[in-house]
Amino acid sequence: MQGTTQTPSQPDAYTPTDRTVPTRAAHKASYDKDLVHSVLDGAYVCHLGFVRDGAPVVLPTLYARVGERLYVHGSTGSRPLREAGQADPGLPVCLTVTHVDGLVLARSAFHHSINYRSVVVHGVAHDVTDPEEKRQALDALVDQVVPGRSADSRPGNKRELAATAVIRLDLDEVSAKVRTGGANDDPEDLALPHWAGVIPLHQGYGTPVANHDLAPGIEPPAYLTAR
Amino acid sequence: MQGTTQTPSQPDAYTPTDRTVPTRAAHKASYDKDLVHSVLDGAYVCHLGFVRDGAPVVLPTLYARVGERLYVHGSTGSRPLREAGQADPGLPVCLTVTHVDGLVLARSAFHHSINYRSVVVHGVAHDVTDPEEKRQALDALVDQVVPGRSADSRPGNKRELAATAVIRLDLDEVSAKVRTGGANDDPEDLALPHWAGVIPLHQGYGTPVANHDLAPGIEPPAYLTAR
Repeated sequence: MQGTTQTPSQPDAYTPTDRTVPTRAAHKASYDKDLVHSVLDGAYVCHLGFVRDGAPVVLPTLYARVGERLYVHGSTGSRPLREAGQADPGLPVCLTVTHVDGLVLARSAFHHSINYRSVVVHGVAHDVTDPEEKRQALDALVDQVVPGRSADSRPGNKRELAATAVIRLDLDEVSAKVRTGGANDDPEDLALPHWAGVIPLHQGYGTPVANHDLAPGIEPPAYLTAR
Repeated sequence: MQGTTQTPSQPDAYTPTDRTVPTRAAHKASYDKDLVHSVLDGAYVCHLGFVRDGAPVVLPTLYARVGERLYVHGSTGSRPLREAGQADPGLPVCLTVTHVDGLVLARSAFHHSINYRSVVVHGVAHDVTDPEEKRQALDALVDQVVPGRSADSRPGNKRELAATAVIRLDLDEVSAKVRTGGANDDPEDLALPHWAGVIPLHQGYGTPVANHDLAPGIEPPAYLTAR
């Protein structure tokens, strides 16, 4: 067809690399952008890994997705964020997000498993220095936790923005991994007298607990109580 | 007193090291063994970090605590487990466990936070080669997810044990970090018309879904339905 090229383009998928093709259970891996986005958009805590003095460090932290970029923030005094700002050309990181959806109980101990959805992002994190990008990233970090909340809070002022470091990690070297379904016992175990199946897990909001110093007459907003 | 020594012993706490003393929010850090154990015992998925080709890798995986040891298992074909077996004197890892307990909404975007409990373990993971230790570790991995389950399933056979690698990480260089309580807004923001407080999060079991090939007459056991 007119206008097409010979180069295969895959706008809807990330390109697999040596690091994102698993050695095991490769059928569970996916590079589909929609799937990756949905896993990332359904959480707000990631586990961020980096290397310090040759050894791995893994810390839980908040993140936000804005298009094909992830943002992580923290105090300008925190080590990884300081190191990302100082390192040239940035700080090599691995950012992982995991949802645990269910417990898979098999007749055999060996086939017990977990239903999960995870995303692993490899790349180099860079300090965000543009003030407008930084402001948008901080709004996104609040909205990732509670959608709509950034518009219902006092925005960061100059002092707060200066005290906060934001680093960016582009979604480029990315894979998702998903397990669904029941237990896969061996045929000879099917008649064993042990229950087998899936225990779905669900997470929900409890009743909001107002701050002790909340001004009178302010009720929890609809975007909280609706969940 | 007779029999005592001059050496201060702290049997109830881990000894802080350069890696386990945070640069920020040091008041949230704890080395208390009971706290560390309770955080570890309340979860079963960790994020395991290691270094490959100089870059960090973070993968979600199941773990179990047995006394002062953590165990992680996987296929003998999986890269980190193979590397732990081959590496001498083992594979440097960072194992992190995180509970998210609540969302902390402040009047100011800046003071939004998360209530959480996390444990970070640094150390060197070693391949478990003793068959009895390996068997106990595999039981513990099943019981960490569903207490009591290993006794209600078919134990691993010789082939399954041979296909499974288990690595051990001693609890030695360990810290916990905990945030609790409400929003800490600045005094000048207290009268702003934004709701502030905590949204508690809770996770629970859904209704068990029996496997399609479950033998007739087997009901979900009490240790599942009680939760």
